[in-house]
Amino acid sequence: MILNLDLKERSYDIIIERGVIKKAAEQLNLKRKVMIITDAGVPSEYASCVLSQSKVGYVEVIPEGENGKSLAVYENVLSKMLEYGFTRSDCVVSVGGGVAGDLTGFCAASYMRGIDFYNIPTTALAQIDASIGGKTAVNLRGIKNIIGAFYQPKKVLIDPDLLITLPPRQLSNGLCEAVKMAMTSDAELFEIMEEGNIYDNIDTIIERSLKIKKSVVEKDEREGGLRKILNFGHTIGHGIESEEKLNGLYHGECVALGMLPMCSTSARERLTKVLKNLHLPTSYDFDIQKIIEAMRHDKKSDGDCITVVLVEKIGTFELKKMSYDELTERFTSYIKKENK
Amino acid sequence: MILNLDLKERSYDIIIERGVIKKAAEQLNLKRKVMIITDAGVPSEYASCVLSQSKVGYVEVIPEGENGKSLAVYENVLSKMLEYGFTRSDCVVSVGGGVAGDLTGFCAASYMRGIDFYNIPTTALAQIDASIGGKTAVNLRGIKNIIGAFYQPKKVLIDPDLLITLPPRQLSNGLCEAVKMAMTSDAELFEIMEEGNIYDNIDTIIERSLKIKKSVVEKDEREGGLRKILNFGHTIGHGIESEEKLNGLYHGECVALGMLPMCSTSARERLTKVLKNLHLPTSYDFDIQKIIEAMRHDKKSDGDCITVVLVEKIGTFELKKMSYDELTERFTSYIKKENK
Repeated sequence: MILNLDLKERSYDIIIERGVIKKAAEQLNLKRKVMIITDAGVPSEYASCVLSQSKVGYVEVIPEGENGKSLAVYENVLSKMLEYGFTRSDCVVSVGGGVAGDLTGFCAASYMRGIDFYNIPTTALAQIDASIGGKTAVNLRGIKNIIGAFYQPKKVLIDPDLLITLPPRQLSNGLCEAVKMAMTSDAELFEIMEEGNIYDNIDTIIERSLKIKKSVVEKDEREGGLRKILNFGHTIGHGIESEEKLNGLYHGECVALGMLPMCSTSARERLTKVLKNLHLPTSYDFDIQKIIEAMRHDKKSDGDCITVVLVEKIGTFELKKMSYDELTERFTSYIKKENK
Repeated sequence: MILNLDLKERSYDIIIERGVIKKAAEQLNLKRKVMIITDAGVPSEYASCVLSQSKVGYVEVIPEGENGKSLAVYENVLSKMLEYGFTRSDCVVSVGGGVAGDLTGFCAASYMRGIDFYNIPTTALAQIDASIGGKTAVNLRGIKNIIGAFYQPKKVLIDPDLLITLPPRQLSNGLCEAVKMAMTSDAELFEIMEEGNIYDNIDTIIERSLKIKKSVVEKDEREGGLRKILNFGHTIGHGIESEEKLNGLYHGECVALGMLPMCSTSARERLTKVLKNLHLPTSYDFDIQKIIEAMRHDKKSDGDCITVVLVEKIGTFELKKMSYDELTERFTSYIKKENK
């Protein structure tokens, strides 16, 4: 299946096809210098597979997790490209999850003020969400995504076969973004997930999720307004991720916790069921003040209030400015472990 | 005088007016957090003047010269903005030359994926050329502008009064870009400069130069093709700048040397006269091989050939792919000191 993301001169195709990585050269222009960036957690044969199809290829392995998104790693990758003589006509390919994609995308956006960028996401999180939309970034001083650019890939190859090697927790981590899309925009997709056979329906779930994201990105490429719906669960989610002591939680797990306080009671009940089925957390013991502090540094922060996405009825949403006080209260009432 | 640079949703005004820095708040939205970036070589009263008009202002002084455009300085500025709690709704202002503008612009382009950027150029080089067009950058491993973004300012304030404090050599450095614009696009402007009273005609020279640049940028924002005419003299010029031992030369001086081999004999004779009148160099003793090597790393490099701008008749230009060998030959014939 091919989805075309329509952004005028920045339009690109998303190819969703089992086995597509093995014929990447049919889809991507690899007849030039190709910098393949992968992370230490990705099976090395995926990068090798792309390397073997490249005219002049190089593989750079970045650290797994958020450490891969530092300015030091960024500088190192750009230095290698310079050393290998990459020009504006060459390209970079991300083979990995959201971290590799964000870092690679920002390298592509800024090397010589922009060269071609291809994305081959290998995690459920990246296939369902992070690989399209053009948000690239690195972290600074422990704050996620504070430096970056809006920069679209030239093409995205999604090979659901690559998910086979993922541990179940990683898979659920990604599926949480599909739950998010369903909650705000696709009641039918939510019902498919409610029925329980999530793993059997993975291709459908990826496709429907990407269609939602595609439609949002097309209407609001640079996060002017509408795109905020993609942040459902992320405002608190990022706060949780930034809070050092909780580094053990995955992004999707933080988003799961972030969505729960932002629903009506009925929506929350149905959501809780789906999250539990995916073994995603529904409560946690937090230091709320620390998290709120981290959130004041968040991009979505706007002075003393913060714009959040609320889901009253599954498949619909509303944007609301909320004070940090109300946020703290919802947080405490709905996901703090002691109260459950 | 107001010039509007028309780039659709990225359009902006360039205000050319003596004394405009003193009423910057009438032109710029300074009723928010304002990070003012200036360099150690700029009179500190210019930044103070903007600071006094800002609601919540901060001044960051970066090192003078190319050292101000390192990734370390970039990281330091972004860290300060994070520390001071800058959000997407705040802004940065460059008060300085091309170095401050390039660094500030890239900070603005990438902080939270883009915040408002104002430019108040204080050098002739920046007022005549560098402050408009949206090319932002930092250096890496001694290679100029290898990392950056196309990112347009929201407004540019050009106050020719600020040039009063410049030493003559700095003024000539900037005027060389006006000579460049005239050579490719404005025979009449070249004649004004040929007449000799360059300093008396500085307002006219700034305006006419900016009009040429504006028209080129409007037609080719991201340096697809036409914008290459702005690189007249810069291909070799950048090569010279990259060559370590010649660090004593200013950008405009390198461009002066870079233009000479790229003209017809008659154009070169007239150009030489104007450059000499501005006390700009017309010959130098180079290590050609080193310079050619640096140029292979240049953005404008395209494999074994390089696209250069040639001026046959003043006020016109042509683009040509030239081999590195021919480049070396022209270089040796026309600006190597021994041959003069």
